Amino acid sequence: MTSGRPAPTRTPEPPYTAVIFTSVRVQDDSPDYSTTAARMETLAAEQPGYLGIESARGAAGLGITVSYWTDAASARAWKQVAEHRLAQQRGREQWYETYRVRVATVEREYGPR
Amino acid sequence: MTSGRPAPTRTPEPPYTAVIFTSVRVQDDSPDYSTTAARMETLAAEQPGYLGIESARGAAGLGITVSYWTDAASARAWKQVAEHRLAQQRGREQWYETYRVRVATVEREYGPR
Repeated sequence: MTSGRPAPTRTPEPPYTAVIFTSVRVQDDSPDYSTTAARMETLAAEQPGYLGIESARGAAGLGITVSYWTDAASARAWKQVAEHRLAQQRGREQWYETYRVRVATVEREYGPR
Repeated sequence: MTSGRPAPTRTPEPPYTAVIFTSVRVQDDSPDYSTTAARMETLAAEQPGYLGIESARGAAGLGITVSYWTDAASARAWKQVAEHRLAQQRGREQWYETYRVRVATVEREYGPR
């Protein structure tokens, strides 16, 4: 998702795990935020079980990031990575007015290839 | 999601169903698109089993819409609603360069209230 035309993640045959992170940003322009968000995308991609990430934030401030993992254990391990934990803490304290995290098992997928 | 500050959907205790729709828009400015998208949000909200919808599209053109349903049967029924089927067809033919639909069961949810 870092350059060129965006595209949906090419995930394997289900089942696999999706972590849906929905957030509302506070209205500031902290440059740290985008730096950290980009760093987290890079770091996530280095984790075992990582399949891909999709991210969009609309003009109104609502953002949705979905990360895909081979299984729930991989998604859980990513949540515990130290540098990611620090980023989560800054998110809670500084960047997000509110958020929800939903961990789901994808059972069916379709669309054109 | 139609007015005021955006907010994540207030979903019930898991399990419930999430339909993750990731799309890349073609580069046009069809006014029909936003009219239809708004109409589909209204129509979805009238369906049995509807829990809520979250939607974001970034500047790069990638959009993510997640709709939440009490169960997979409700999500499937929404897919088959006649007016929604017409919108899906226009999406495939006119509005989307590509897209993926993923049907998932949410097993865990957390975040501040």
